[in-house]
Amino acid sequence: MAKNTNMRWRLPLVCLLWELAMIVLFGVFVRFGAEADAHWEEEKRNMNLTSDMENDFYFRYPSFQDVHVMIFVGFGFLMTFLKRYGFGAVGFNFLLAAFGIQWALLMQGWFHSFKDGKILIGVENLINADFCVGSVCIAFGAILGKTSPIQLLVMTLFQVTLFSVNEYILLNLLHVKDAGGSMTIHTFGAYFGLTVTRILYRPNLEQSKDKQGSVYHSDLFAMIGTLYLWMYWPSFNSAISDHGDAQHRSAINTYCSLAACVLTTMAFSSMLQKKGKLDMVHIQNATLAGGVAVGTSAEMMLTPYGSLIVGSISGIVSTLGYVYFTPFLESRLHIQDTCGIHNLHAMPGLIGGIVGAITAAAATEDVYGKEGFIKAFDFTGVYQTRTPSIQGGFQAAGIVVSLLMAFAGGAIVGGILKLPIWGDAAAENCFEDGIYWEVPEDEESDVYHMHNPDKPASP
Amino acid sequence: MAKNTNMRWRLPLVCLLWELAMIVLFGVFVRFGAEADAHWEEEKRNMNLTSDMENDFYFRYPSFQDVHVMIFVGFGFLMTFLKRYGFGAVGFNFLLAAFGIQWALLMQGWFHSFKDGKILIGVENLINADFCVGSVCIAFGAILGKTSPIQLLVMTLFQVTLFSVNEYILLNLLHVKDAGGSMTIHTFGAYFGLTVTRILYRPNLEQSKDKQGSVYHSDLFAMIGTLYLWMYWPSFNSAISDHGDAQHRSAINTYCSLAACVLTTMAFSSMLQKKGKLDMVHIQNATLAGGVAVGTSAEMMLTPYGSLIVGSISGIVSTLGYVYFTPFLESRLHIQDTCGIHNLHAMPGLIGGIVGAITAAAATEDVYGKEGFIKAFDFTGVYQTRTPSIQGGFQAAGIVVSLLMAFAGGAIVGGILKLPIWGDAAAENCFEDGIYWEVPEDEESDVYHMHNPDKPASP
Amino acid sequence: MAKNTNMRWRLPLVCLLWELAMIVLFGVFVRFGAEADAHWEEEKRNMNLTSDMENDFYFRYPSFQDVHVMIFVGFGFLMTFLKRYGFGAVGFNFLLAAFGIQWALLMQGWFHSFKDGKILIGVENLINADFCVGSVCIAFGAILGKTSPIQLLVMTLFQVTLFSVNEYILLNLLHVKDAGGSMTIHTFGAYFGLTVTRILYRPNLEQSKDKQGSVYHSDLFAMIGTLYLWMYWPSFNSAISDHGDAQHRSAINTYCSLAACVLTTMAFSSMLQKKGKLDMVHIQNATLAGGVAVGTSAEMMLTPYGSLIVGSISGIVSTLGYVYFTPFLESRLHIQDTCGIHNLHAMPGLIGGIVGAITAAAATEDVYGKEGFIKAFDFTGVYQTRTPSIQGGFQAAGIVVSLLMAFAGGAIVGGILKLPIWGDAAAENCFEDGIYWEVPEDEESDVYHMHNPDKPASP
Repeated sequence: MAKNTNMRWRLPLVCLLWELAMIVLFGVFVRFGAEADAHWEEEKRNMNLTSDMENDFYFRYPSFQDVHVMIFVGFGFLMTFLKRYGFGAVGFNFLLAAFGIQWALLMQGWFHSFKDGKILIGVENLINADFCVGSVCIAFGAILGKTSPIQLLVMTLFQVTLFSVNEYILLNLLHVKDAGGSMTIHTFGAYFGLTVTRILYRPNLEQSKDKQGSVYHSDLFAMIGTLYLWMYWPSFNSAISDHGDAQHRSAINTYCSLAACVLTTMAFSSMLQKKGKLDMVHIQNATLAGGVAVGTSAEMMLTPYGSLIVGSISGIVSTLGYVYFTPFLESRLHIQDTCGIHNLHAMPGLIGGIVGAITAAAATEDVYGKEGFIKAFDFTGVYQTRTPSIQGGFQAAGIVVSLLMAFAGGAIVGGILKLPIWGDAAAENCFEDGIYWEVPEDEESDVYHMHNPDKPASP
Repeated sequence: MAKNTNMRWRLPLVCLLWELAMIVLFGVFVRFGAEADAHWEEEKRNMNLTSDMENDFYFRYPSFQDVHVMIFVGFGFLMTFLKRYGFGAVGFNFLLAAFGIQWALLMQGWFHSFKDGKILIGVENLINADFCVGSVCIAFGAILGKTSPIQLLVMTLFQVTLFSVNEYILLNLLHVKDAGGSMTIHTFGAYFGLTVTRILYRPNLEQSKDKQGSVYHSDLFAMIGTLYLWMYWPSFNSAISDHGDAQHRSAINTYCSLAACVLTTMAFSSMLQKKGKLDMVHIQNATLAGGVAVGTSAEMMLTPYGSLIVGSISGIVSTLGYVYFTPFLESRLHIQDTCGIHNLHAMPGLIGGIVGAITAAAATEDVYGKEGFIKAFDFTGVYQTRTPSIQGGFQAAGIVVSLLMAFAGGAIVGGILKLPIWGDAAAENCFEDGIYWEVPEDEESDVYHMHNPDKPASP
Repeated sequence: MAKNTNMRWRLPLVCLLWELAMIVLFGVFVRFGAEADAHWEEEKRNMNLTSDMENDFYFRYPSFQDVHVMIFVGFGFLMTFLKRYGFGAVGFNFLLAAFGIQWALLMQGWFHSFKDGKILIGVENLINADFCVGSVCIAFGAILGKTSPIQLLVMTLFQVTLFSVNEYILLNLLHVKDAGGSMTIHTFGAYFGLTVTRILYRPNLEQSKDKQGSVYHSDLFAMIGTLYLWMYWPSFNSAISDHGDAQHRSAINTYCSLAACVLTTMAFSSMLQKKGKLDMVHIQNATLAGGVAVGTSAEMMLTPYGSLIVGSISGIVSTLGYVYFTPFLESRLHIQDTCGIHNLHAMPGLIGGIVGAITAAAATEDVYGKEGFIKAFDFTGVYQTRTPSIQGGFQAAGIVVSLLMAFAGGAIVGGILKLPIWGDAAAENCFEDGIYWEVPEDEESDVYHMHNPDKPASP
């Protein structure tokens, strides 16, 4: 089955038109927020601030940079594990994220930073845009190797939009807390991506089975992604928490959860293999589940041992998922999940939502202090009378809403991506950089030392 | 043509003598600035500071570390794309940068931090030293693979000196703004390097043409460099801006410019290939042009949509450069530009200088606020009466001065490097780590699986 | 000699039991410190703090993240230089560090953060836990490739315990300064590891000699580790120094020392080879000795030129060590030191301790200022009457104590690890990922393109 995968006019057209749209919309809507505007000196006086240090930049910029690394190097390199899809993994992730953050600045800006007809942006907007794109990177993991760059851009456009709507419903209408995005980023992103890949089901994908594995060095490249995600996750979960104790606490909880997760992942990875050997797929992915699973509760008084428990459980669940659940999803439900995002993001995301709901419901003034209690859950204004147990109920509702948005949105977007105009590759050419990239010939080299000369790899 | 490339006595001699000189000069001149000196407690009282947070360390150290990563990992790994020159790329970059930062601390210190016979250093000096060395790393890109480590050290010595003079002329005499260094770092560094490589023209370089390409994994290593440069560029452009809004604004502008740049680069990379395939060379390099092109204006009120426009244009210009301009430079002007720094630094640097001049000339008190206007352009003291349009003129003059310094300096240094005493390799041995490095034999391996046993690769 | 290296039940058992123990102990002992607790608002009022910026999180979190990268990516990738042990290097380092930081939070917590029956943790505890684990990563370097993951976990358990005791003796009983850990981390960690590897001496290790080398790309992976260690070392040495000038000064001293170290390493690496070629082993390791050697004195008034001198010397000593000392240790003393930690950590650590003692002994009120002098050395309370020369004596005592603890502890732990129950590999299977990891088959690939089919590599 020959398909037209030539991107020559389609990809440039999409990229340039969309960038043009971004420029126009930014021109109409986006301006600097007060802390980034040259009027800051006056603003400082108005706000009675004595030091430039009070600029939000200094509270959040280091975390922003860590999050930025997670999105571009973390997700990008995590997906380079495939032997012949390293360019696509890191390059398409780069493309979709670069477009996505622009569109997210607008979408999230309209919902959260709109004032007098303008979107006023600062460092927190940059972090939120990265977060939003994180959910697209997650969905990308499910369809990795099977889609054209245009499909990815189309998906990004829609997913960022839906993410922002879902986020608005959760944070503003349900008044839910979700600083690390267990629900908004992971649950939504993963089930969205899984629904898309279900719709795009390829019955003949075993034709490219030989390219779905890794080689020795591609596994090491992937570990770069894994480690940066793992190390910087405390920054991810604390990046937009309240100044002071909340950021501090989020970082500690996440650090503890991730540490525990590594041990249980290693344990189950070894236990589930006949020879007791460790599997790189588990180490690369399941060790991160602990970060996902404390995404909602990290800024709450989860406590360090609570974090260890959550991290331990999520490592086990995630590893079990890779061994038993992924094959089941593929064979029975026709969900082809290239990176196993169901194990790394979907299930741990659900755990994260549930843990968040429980932790919120269990909150007391005694544990948080009178002021801390109100501050932690924003029980002010119309929410003044909300009790912890009601908050827990709303948190749980947030999970359900995220799931519904993901399934519905994924189904619609999957349907759009199924149209035969986007230039995706035939089944036998999946997981193959040679389709969309100029690939070096590597006569003397490793991966492209082709035995089968009629493969399209060496063009 | 056999050349003596044995470094055994020459390289150690140069390294040790120069390090000795550094020790002596540091001993005579360099001391801790007030914020790093143990007298800080008294200083704090004198300056009426109530918190250690007011120490410049906390305003700039996170950005410093990001810049540091850009210089050593960013530039180092960006240049590992060559199939057999990874050691040289990352190792010689390490060597020249480690020497360069020491010499830059002195040179820039004499010009900018000299007080009572001593150079007083703090975190801002470290950043500026890294910046200065950045311009050497850029020039290194033009001559990559064709020079001995001694030549690189000699070039570093002279280029750091000339950089500091040029920077002094621009910042102090012309009173030009250039926080991200579009002129001082990129324009100067790139045209300096291009002039040097023109002087060192090798007519028989096609003898090592087979080694000028990449292999699959070397392209992935290079993407590590690309991504770290791309992600941390907002820190680069904001690292030495004024505290508060200026740092905040620089980061946002750079973030926007870089995001736009990725899309136009991908568009043109695909458009300019017959089969519409993306070229890793463009993705590795042209995606960064957006950071260069807002180097001067990022701390000004360029606005987010202005940044998108600048980023979009620079991505296009840079990609076109790789496709059409680099071959032209080599065939017609005999400029052999290994990494294509003309496309990544020279042209975007000029764009950056021009955008900076226009943005400065267009500044109004309305946009900046009365205080913000004075603060942004330092219109104090003898510059109290300078108007935006005059400032724009001086900014433009800064571009011209940087170009002249680069051409003149590059010609002189190129002449020095042409002397036959520095141990550079013959044309057929260029782009070959085996000349200056112990290279593992790799019998069973990728790159060094030699078909041609009389090549010097496996020593 | 066939050995049972099957980890199937042993490794899971150890991991799960120990994680369970961590959960129980954290549950009993570990709580959030005041700055991470939701009662922070009240605490702020009690401490008369006006800004959230005064939370220690903002003073130390950026440095913490840098240290975190050093432990997991820095040490992990530094050890990927072996051609067939990349998974083990980065994966086992991940495992032992993830366990180690939990146990270190407890051990160090009992000694330093224990209040009313609880360990109260904050960002400084996270840094210290990473530091403690750093000493285990160092020891891992000596036994790399020769031990099972269970042995590593057992070693981590004991080494973290002994580290904490040693640290307590030095910091609390001897009142020694050692912010960057020349003594507590490097000297202790290295001599501990060397003693362990001596006890575990394998007479037939030359059977796996062919796997003890690197391949081209594994050397590049190792350079990722090297550079991150090198770049972030200023954060390492300044991470737990006093706020303000001390952190600032530590970073500058370390930056200078490391820069000098690169030049002398390159010089001696070239000088000591007949053909004058640079050796990647030296560049990957000896360039870091400068960071180790200012570990104790970086926060003191060592001065920039003092740092250059220390860095220069340590680069020379370390490179000489690789060329002359490592072979001697192996052949005469039967110390098989896979990564050469004797050269990178042991000798530079001793230099660091000595330089620290001298710098302390030479301190004067004139150089530090009256207040700065007291603050720098904590000459308060019972230490009010201590003089610099006495402090120098105690610093020197700290070296001796660290050495004794390392030798004694290493001997005991080495003895435990020698028990035949831990599943270590036979001599001919050392340095081979295939023993403990599922390794991709790589038919068409680099490292595993086996000529010798009866090797156990492709299972």
